[in-house]
Amino acid sequence: MDLSRQYAESLDAQDPIGHFRAQFYIPDTALVYFDGNSLGRLPLATRERLRDAIDREWGHDLIRGWDTWIDLARSTGDLLAASVLHVLPGEVVLSDSTSVNLYKLAAAALDARPGRGVIVTDDDNFPTDRYVLEGLAAARGLELRVVTTDLDAGVDPQRVAAALDDDVALVCLSHVAYRSGAIADMVAITTAAHRVGALTLWDLCHSAGSVRVPLRESGADLAVGCTYKYLNAGPGAPAFLYVRRDLQATLRQPIWGWFGRRDQFAMGAGYEPAGSVDRFLVGTPPVLGGYAALEGARITAAAGIDALAAKGAALTDYAIGLAAAWLGDRLALASPRESARRGSHVTFRAPEAWPICQALKAAGVIPDFRTPERLRIGLAPLYTRFVDVHEGMARLRDVVDTGAYLSYGAELGRVT
Amino acid sequence: MDLSRQYAESLDAQDPIGHFRAQFYIPDTALVYFDGNSLGRLPLATRERLRDAIDREWGHDLIRGWDTWIDLARSTGDLLAASVLHVLPGEVVLSDSTSVNLYKLAAAALDARPGRGVIVTDDDNFPTDRYVLEGLAAARGLELRVVTTDLDAGVDPQRVAAALDDDVALVCLSHVAYRSGAIADMVAITTAAHRVGALTLWDLCHSAGSVRVPLRESGADLAVGCTYKYLNAGPGAPAFLYVRRDLQATLRQPIWGWFGRRDQFAMGAGYEPAGSVDRFLVGTPPVLGGYAALEGARITAAAGIDALAAKGAALTDYAIGLAAAWLGDRLALASPRESARRGSHVTFRAPEAWPICQALKAAGVIPDFRTPERLRIGLAPLYTRFVDVHEGMARLRDVVDTGAYLSYGAELGRVT
Repeated sequence: MDLSRQYAESLDAQDPIGHFRAQFYIPDTALVYFDGNSLGRLPLATRERLRDAIDREWGHDLIRGWDTWIDLARSTGDLLAASVLHVLPGEVVLSDSTSVNLYKLAAAALDARPGRGVIVTDDDNFPTDRYVLEGLAAARGLELRVVTTDLDAGVDPQRVAAALDDDVALVCLSHVAYRSGAIADMVAITTAAHRVGALTLWDLCHSAGSVRVPLRESGADLAVGCTYKYLNAGPGAPAFLYVRRDLQATLRQPIWGWFGRRDQFAMGAGYEPAGSVDRFLVGTPPVLGGYAALEGARITAAAGIDALAAKGAALTDYAIGLAAAWLGDRLALASPRESARRGSHVTFRAPEAWPICQALKAAGVIPDFRTPERLRIGLAPLYTRFVDVHEGMARLRDVVDTGAYLSYGAELGRVT
Repeated sequence: MDLSRQYAESLDAQDPIGHFRAQFYIPDTALVYFDGNSLGRLPLATRERLRDAIDREWGHDLIRGWDTWIDLARSTGDLLAASVLHVLPGEVVLSDSTSVNLYKLAAAALDARPGRGVIVTDDDNFPTDRYVLEGLAAARGLELRVVTTDLDAGVDPQRVAAALDDDVALVCLSHVAYRSGAIADMVAITTAAHRVGALTLWDLCHSAGSVRVPLRESGADLAVGCTYKYLNAGPGAPAFLYVRRDLQATLRQPIWGWFGRRDQFAMGAGYEPAGSVDRFLVGTPPVLGGYAALEGARITAAAGIDALAAKGAALTDYAIGLAAAWLGDRLALASPRESARRGSHVTFRAPEAWPICQALKAAGVIPDFRTPERLRIGLAPLYTRFVDVHEGMARLRDVVDTGAYLSYGAELGRVT
């Protein structure tokens, strides 16, 4: 492997989507940002759009802005459906947070499988997913059946299949694991779940904008995801939800807010769910976050998921190669080795992961720490260059080689 | 009554909080905006704050912004508690939408009253409130007992009291009615509810920032409200929720998201609710809307609720006086006559309310239409001048006198 910076530069020169970096606001060019899978960067178009939405639409148009804003959740959902998730128009909509959407769709699924007593998830699922499911199980007296997953290899479809029986109502898993980046086999797991009559609900937070999501190929039933990671919609931007079209007429979610009602603005007596995916909406949606999600979806759509996934694979492969060459066994790979089995982040394991993470930040590189003992490197393909990977991994090497990390304690870090 | 514009100007000259208008971004000075109770105006401080949050905090600081953002929901909640709702620190927090908060707190209240079979509300409550309660009642097999309220006079405490018995778990009403502006007697109703052992949940959407809310005086248990009306936090900004401190340890809400978990960032196994009002949080909160809510709360706190309520009463009194003088019985008052019984909006009734509303918009005045046959005039006291009321009511008079409204159809309008 060529370890020179020149080689990284040559990879950037050949990158077919390298020019998208110029569409982002990057005021600190010395910073190496390896955390676009926690919070994506600010697109220039979003910066302009938000100024216009604040000054002209809110400031000037005032309440008349709603003539436009009212369609934002659906139009952004349709763009995500067409270009990011590859599903049908009317199957995706922006709404609430990932956690609230998980609750709504999981509850809807459980209602659609009355008499069944089990929810299946795994112990590597993102915390909020596990907690939301635990709450639903407790409220309804159901069993939350937790499959054991290898934290580095990702969910094993055979273990999930072994946990399935006719009493399972819902299988809820992450498509790309937040820790290891491992991609779950959505087709195999959904097929197994459907075989026993269960519904599937997928968390796409680390998938949307980074990899192909086989919702259609798998026949997956439900999904949720955030927009502030690879979709670059900014901190706390609204999440999205997906409900397969043929399920929409029969599924009902538990929070009967006015945005989910048929003929909402008649404000009439009694709740009747909207005839579309709108029935999964609840309250007045956040407009600024909605616009940021729209712009983030646009830039993602322009680059194309296949190009993004290919570059994500190349970037993570390159990081793994540099780590092996420069750090050897001082840093263990804690992600699948095969790039087709990973999302756009890669994770390494070391007992000193926490102090190394702190020392790296001091050296101008922002990775993420994840329990237990993991250093997570997110390489968002829309704006991360091969020279960034080279520079960041070189600084990582120096932090380890010089022992600079030894001055940092082992305090548990904040993660988001 | 002096009908001259000079009189309005003299009222503005004496207005002790008139100078707050200069703190808002008002690009269209010809527009008369009577809809600040649907969507408040843009404060200049918010405009600056959002630019800084977008460029510096998101664009430059990236994920490090969360070191600050993580406290936004609580710090804004504490400011609302201290200066807008007059309750204790740690009793208010920003979260989700009003509808989702209603669901969480209503569900928590029902769980705290096991075995009771009735939720009480009224037929004048805002649609989303009625729908959310209907959904909870349906899911749990409870009775939703709907008190009949006079649409102009507001909720009658005696009728509510008559609907109460030992089977009532929860009484959920709006403090200021969205249609008439009538203020419900929170003290009398809460006292009656507590007498039968029920909990109370108040919708403060049209109260927060416009009137004194007697949460403490009444001993009210729970409340929710939005920030995009009188608190000027912009379209779809996050809502707030209030839980009386002594109830927090025992109440649990149903959506077990990671922001509600004790020691959230340990990301550990199993959900345990936070020991504070944070247990009513769910997912990752919207940062831009959170900042807008903070700035909106600041400007409201600076003016002071008593000054705002006094000016709101004076503005609505003035509008009622001008309407009576100029339009007589062509426009009936559809709000309480006594200003102490109203919020900061006033509503008129006319069979032609819909076309009048459209003609007014064409004449540069933005009111709101509400079913049935109502023209709603919102007079947000932070930036509405007496000359605005004079000008807007004069244009209303002209629209009616000239029959300009006759060219508009009777199509039902969109409202938000």
